[in-house]
Amino acid sequence: MPKISQRAELMPSSPIRKLVPLADAAKSRGVKIYHLNIGQPDLPTPQEGLDALKNIDLKVLEYSPSDGFLSLREKLVGYYDQYQIKLSPDDIIITTGGSEAVLFAFMSCLNPGDEIIVPEPAYANYMAFAISAGAVIRTVPATIEDGFALPKIEQFEALINERTRGILICNPNNPTGYLYTRKEMNRIRDLVKKHDLFLFSDEVYREFIYTGSPYISACHLEGIEQNVVLIDSVSKRYSECGIRIGALITKNREVRNAVMKLCQARLSPPLIGQIIAEASIDAPREYSIHTYEEYIERRNCLIDGLNKIPGVYSPIPMGAFYTVARLPIDDSDKFCAWCLSDFEYEGETIMLAPAKGFYLETDRGQDEVRIAYVLNKEDLQRALLILGKALEAYPGRV
Amino acid sequence: MPKISQRAELMPSSPIRKLVPLADAAKSRGVKIYHLNIGQPDLPTPQEGLDALKNIDLKVLEYSPSDGFLSLREKLVGYYDQYQIKLSPDDIIITTGGSEAVLFAFMSCLNPGDEIIVPEPAYANYMAFAISAGAVIRTVPATIEDGFALPKIEQFEALINERTRGILICNPNNPTGYLYTRKEMNRIRDLVKKHDLFLFSDEVYREFIYTGSPYISACHLEGIEQNVVLIDSVSKRYSECGIRIGALITKNREVRNAVMKLCQARLSPPLIGQIIAEASIDAPREYSIHTYEEYIERRNCLIDGLNKIPGVYSPIPMGAFYTVARLPIDDSDKFCAWCLSDFEYEGETIMLAPAKGFYLETDRGQDEVRIAYVLNKEDLQRALLILGKALEAYPGRV
Repeated sequence: MPKISQRAELMPSSPIRKLVPLADAAKSRGVKIYHLNIGQPDLPTPQEGLDALKNIDLKVLEYSPSDGFLSLREKLVGYYDQYQIKLSPDDIIITTGGSEAVLFAFMSCLNPGDEIIVPEPAYANYMAFAISAGAVIRTVPATIEDGFALPKIEQFEALINERTRGILICNPNNPTGYLYTRKEMNRIRDLVKKHDLFLFSDEVYREFIYTGSPYISACHLEGIEQNVVLIDSVSKRYSECGIRIGALITKNREVRNAVMKLCQARLSPPLIGQIIAEASIDAPREYSIHTYEEYIERRNCLIDGLNKIPGVYSPIPMGAFYTVARLPIDDSDKFCAWCLSDFEYEGETIMLAPAKGFYLETDRGQDEVRIAYVLNKEDLQRALLILGKALEAYPGRV
Repeated sequence: MPKISQRAELMPSSPIRKLVPLADAAKSRGVKIYHLNIGQPDLPTPQEGLDALKNIDLKVLEYSPSDGFLSLREKLVGYYDQYQIKLSPDDIIITTGGSEAVLFAFMSCLNPGDEIIVPEPAYANYMAFAISAGAVIRTVPATIEDGFALPKIEQFEALINERTRGILICNPNNPTGYLYTRKEMNRIRDLVKKHDLFLFSDEVYREFIYTGSPYISACHLEGIEQNVVLIDSVSKRYSECGIRIGALITKNREVRNAVMKLCQARLSPPLIGQIIAEASIDAPREYSIHTYEEYIERRNCLIDGLNKIPGVYSPIPMGAFYTVARLPIDDSDKFCAWCLSDFEYEGETIMLAPAKGFYLETDRGQDEVRIAYVLNKEDLQRALLILGKALEAYPGRV
């Protein structure tokens, strides 16, 4: 029997994936699970997107252009302009979700053995895409004590060597909800400029910012226009994760041409998804206001509730719809598994994402979990109650 | 300005892509182009698929499972059973088009530097996916004199060394239309078994077989069940290339687990496409009969017409909807470009795919082009007339 690749062996299994059989078993015992583990918003997709889907009147569902429909890219130019991100349609390549944008960015910019530096905790799937490209992720720790602010630039500098090719940030951040300040973004800019690095910036949560603080995009940073590769997706902002439409944005023509070779090889991004995404951009202001207000309430409900549970601490996330909280536990993998396999309260339990999965350094995040607030307030409150009860009963409590 | 990766530099640009600006220029001069260069069928998507699209009644367009909907995979089990391919839903992973299936197969099975052997001419995008995985494609030539039959097994054997990890075939073949015989498939099986190789088999054209000859799938070959990775797609058979739904099929659990890590990293295949694909499987027998009859007619029309043009030779393709023909020309790249830039007949011209793009060895396919018969008979006849006139006028005629 022929062997799989070393790359496949290296690739981490999703930390949540290991919990799925336990969750399935709990469900089959009749236990209701509150899913705080996923990034799938429960809010409706904009009616404009759903209407466009209904009104599709094609007889042949043909390939679309490899870089996506021009009409979609033109409309996105207007969308980004609202955020003072000035683009032309040629700066935008439509991808199959933000995931493909990350993969293609790494494939186009990084050689095997090249290193990128990422503040952690970080979105776990970056790792799989880096391994796909043969690249190495080096991490600098953001800490819960600092509210997951950008680590000191000296810590980045300490990791830079001749193989360092880029910095990767997620802003607003998944999993921490942190929003980088103008000062922090300027520090990143200076570092990128000094070492002529790529700046990969995943900004799919820009709609979800809850403080008065400004959103500083990597595209706002002056003097590094040729270094920035922006990762984007319509999944979160229009609650349409399933249509798999994202974007890779760069003003660097060499990078664009390289990415286009990959795009041409995979022929085209999803046709129907592009039609839905394009129409969703027309969602009225009320749609985003409603979404925003809903998340503000949920965030307040969650963070207040968490910090009232004895031994629990969560910083106040400024964006996205996650927080990383510290629990009075020995091991987040064990606790999250135990909640599914050994615990229930009045026939209900919770599913959380162990934060260890968001750290590469194995000693980090031992007592942290990521909690997504994609449930309505009532469900969140119930989930918080159950979390409190679980922590009281958990044998590995510290 | 940071540099792109060597991988991106190595990656070939699509051979047809270079012709696109010339085609655009011709169109802007008012010249009508008959597109014989593309694999996009003009036949309608099954009504069942289009109805399913119309009837989607979801409020949130959510992620689907990383390996695709179970209902789709279950239905595919029945579909493959018609071809005596016996599968369980767990043998099937839904991918974003056949393209992603090829990429994930290579990523999961091949280490950087590993080699796979491919009879050429071959689908050009295999190369981009191999480069993505850091793998090396070695080729054995199939020749137009032999009607593009499987090259002698000794030629494969001659290339096998300690880095050889797999054989890749496309059956029925793009670009040649050749269908491997039982004898040839058994030879491949013996080779794969002897050296314990992977057999990557791209069989997306199985609906398009025009002779009485049997379709022998890699999945029919006994004794190499753990070696086979089947690549599939609904794009061609249901004329729905745009929905980006394919499949990677393997009975090898290690390979499946490795592929699933990549699938989980990219979260899910397109939601809407899966719904359309699932419904399309219900298309009545008349749909495939109509498609089949239409292509039989087109094939006869094209091949007869080609072989009547002085100096032109095409073998009779047994499957798919392409043929590779030999033209009395110096260089297929030049001829195909010239047809767009310097030639027209009564305000019309043709776009062909230079076959050089389907060969890795640069001296092969000089006088060959790939012609797709995805146009109706009247258009094909007109295109043939124009091809004849072009060959008369072409200054590089030999």
